[in-house]
Amino acid sequence: MKATIITIGDEILIGQITDTNSGFIAKALNKIGVDVHEMISISDDKNHILETFAKVQNQVDFVIITGGLGPTKDDITKITFCDYFLDTLERNEAVENHIVALFTKMNFVVSQVNLDQALVPSKCTVLQNNFGTAPGMWMQKENTVFVSLPGVPYEMKAIVTNELIPKIVNEYKRPYILHKTILTYGQGESIVAKRIEEWEDKLPTFVKLAYLPSPGRVRLRLSARGLEEYFLHTTINRLVTELQEIINDIIVGFEEDESIEVVLGKLLAQKGFTLSTAESCTGGKISEVITSVSGSSAYFRGSIVSYATDTKVSILKVNQSTINAYSVVSKQVAEEMACGAQKLLQTDFAIATTGNAGPAKGDADATVGTVCLAIATPKGVCSEVYNFGQPRQKVIDRAVNKGLELLLKEILKNY
Amino acid sequence: MKATIITIGDEILIGQITDTNSGFIAKALNKIGVDVHEMISISDDKNHILETFAKVQNQVDFVIITGGLGPTKDDITKITFCDYFLDTLERNEAVENHIVALFTKMNFVVSQVNLDQALVPSKCTVLQNNFGTAPGMWMQKENTVFVSLPGVPYEMKAIVTNELIPKIVNEYKRPYILHKTILTYGQGESIVAKRIEEWEDKLPTFVKLAYLPSPGRVRLRLSARGLEEYFLHTTINRLVTELQEIINDIIVGFEEDESIEVVLGKLLAQKGFTLSTAESCTGGKISEVITSVSGSSAYFRGSIVSYATDTKVSILKVNQSTINAYSVVSKQVAEEMACGAQKLLQTDFAIATTGNAGPAKGDADATVGTVCLAIATPKGVCSEVYNFGQPRQKVIDRAVNKGLELLLKEILKNY
Repeated sequence: MKATIITIGDEILIGQITDTNSGFIAKALNKIGVDVHEMISISDDKNHILETFAKVQNQVDFVIITGGLGPTKDDITKITFCDYFLDTLERNEAVENHIVALFTKMNFVVSQVNLDQALVPSKCTVLQNNFGTAPGMWMQKENTVFVSLPGVPYEMKAIVTNELIPKIVNEYKRPYILHKTILTYGQGESIVAKRIEEWEDKLPTFVKLAYLPSPGRVRLRLSARGLEEYFLHTTINRLVTELQEIINDIIVGFEEDESIEVVLGKLLAQKGFTLSTAESCTGGKISEVITSVSGSSAYFRGSIVSYATDTKVSILKVNQSTINAYSVVSKQVAEEMACGAQKLLQTDFAIATTGNAGPAKGDADATVGTVCLAIATPKGVCSEVYNFGQPRQKVIDRAVNKGLELLLKEILKNY
Repeated sequence: MKATIITIGDEILIGQITDTNSGFIAKALNKIGVDVHEMISISDDKNHILETFAKVQNQVDFVIITGGLGPTKDDITKITFCDYFLDTLERNEAVENHIVALFTKMNFVVSQVNLDQALVPSKCTVLQNNFGTAPGMWMQKENTVFVSLPGVPYEMKAIVTNELIPKIVNEYKRPYILHKTILTYGQGESIVAKRIEEWEDKLPTFVKLAYLPSPGRVRLRLSARGLEEYFLHTTINRLVTELQEIINDIIVGFEEDESIEVVLGKLLAQKGFTLSTAESCTGGKISEVITSVSGSSAYFRGSIVSYATDTKVSILKVNQSTINAYSVVSKQVAEEMACGAQKLLQTDFAIATTGNAGPAKGDADATVGTVCLAIATPKGVCSEVYNFGQPRQKVIDRAVNKGLELLLKEILKNY
């Protein structure tokens, strides 16, 4: 089965907001064996919407539309739905009751604008929106089902998870798709590609391989498709084992879609270790990434973001003489910061960063892009120096990744 | 002039990565008066690419394609380009020299896979890629120019900024487009809409208004288009002044595309104030957002992420008796955390957060989603309690926004 995802909204076409909805929907559809054929972003313009509907009609089984359902004047999806399906708007009592209940709970007065969100095409099946006022709408024309969802991510996600996916699973037969993603660290795309060339050439035709490079790492995704679930599983497992043997010196994690902070968190929790960070150029982002994982309070105790140089001395107890001798951006200072956080926050491990993210030169003489990373462990402290170039955000992101990676390698190797 | 942006890559269609490239390109094109008609994401499949090219041919002036240019086997854009333009690949000497120089500089051996990136369609104009090996390619067929760019964001951005945009500016005449975005805080989309309804109805036809809601704030974007630059400027300025008068009690910032952290940073730098944060449930994200702004070291001194309860006492000097009396998620603890950070990091202002981001209940009895925010100022300390519901990431993001917003309002009002 195939789907096309349409996002409606001028704000996307002028680049003011990034469409993250389509990716979420694609992932959810993929898991139940529905392939996404295309993703299309179009304007809040009735004719443009109608033309696009006509183009995708009968080309795919499902058309999932997000955006254009808010209470304001630039949202016109609902009216366009009526045009396309030759239908009229009708007040839906269940939706109206839900809107009134939602506003009452928040102690807000319900306006007419809000109440009008209960107007839906008379022939549509409503998909309940527990987190907002605009309901999802499911309508069929010939061989294609059109589903319209609100653009607010939290609302859209809840409807997809609780209403749309269960409805498709219950009402349609689908093939089986299995994805397995292998995370590799420390080598670029072309080097990884050369290493696995021979293995790749022998892949069965029902298995596809994709390279997903991002700063400092390459993910390899294997996708297998067929009707025999057990056969797909054994094939993929065999291929992953072969792959691990070929690139075992550069691979670190190999769980489907698991980010490094999740892998690291599981490892820390499992081994009963605690962690802290001492951050300068990363500004708290390592801490933020670690605590984005729910349950992180089991192993993460805190962070000192010592952005100003003197706070490295006053709080983390870095020696002023070390700063004078080696400069604030140095392996020595990074090591003292890591040990300082480890001691102050009483943790087994600590990650520390000091560097110059740019664009201008900071307090220190370090070249723009230079980052010193240190890992304090129960057995001592180690450090590395990198230059991540520019721009600023890239330097910060790569320092965060590299810090997590160094810690992960250290724990896997020595603990 | 119109453009369509095409993103090639299965990794986007299965939702593994989010396409941020299209937004960047759209913004860049918009600024020079090129409208984006559609954004389309398609698979790494030759026929799918060819069909899509045929569909957009002569429908728009420019087709900007990203992705499918890496050195690995799943990248087939270049070959498809040859097919579509009835051309063949030819080694480009300038590109080859650049690749060799790039690898030599990094002390890497150049592989054949890398060298083959110098193969480009013979009729194309090469757009130099300073940060990577895959060059941009510019080719024309009838009324449409097709531009292929690498998918790696840093490489793509540099080519767009340094090569593509200057080339379009030099070679084509375009209308003038002016966008102005007004940030509003504290009221929902429907309330803002009702307040400005009358003003909105009287907008000139060449001005469009769009609502861009996100957690805790609504951005209003005015877009004017025409040939008279000066006339557009005066019109937009007049409309913005009118708008400010109507919603002056809820508006906080009003600079085009400026995020709250940039507005706040400017204000702090201008007034010579310093800032620190004490974060629990936000895990360092307020600090990270503040330091994402270059030059933030002028006003930001650091943060204490006191994730474990006892670190609030040992480092921030929160009284254990306050925690016992009011629980760790309370206004009282937030206020003591803010004052602790203000004192420890010696700053004029401090933002503190303590809460339960969920999904499970934490140390405290607080309901999932509860966040207490405190602002320490030179004149004292104030605090607020919110419930941001679920999921976890939403709670964290809204707490970050709300913390920055409270501080901004406090400074604008009292300093």
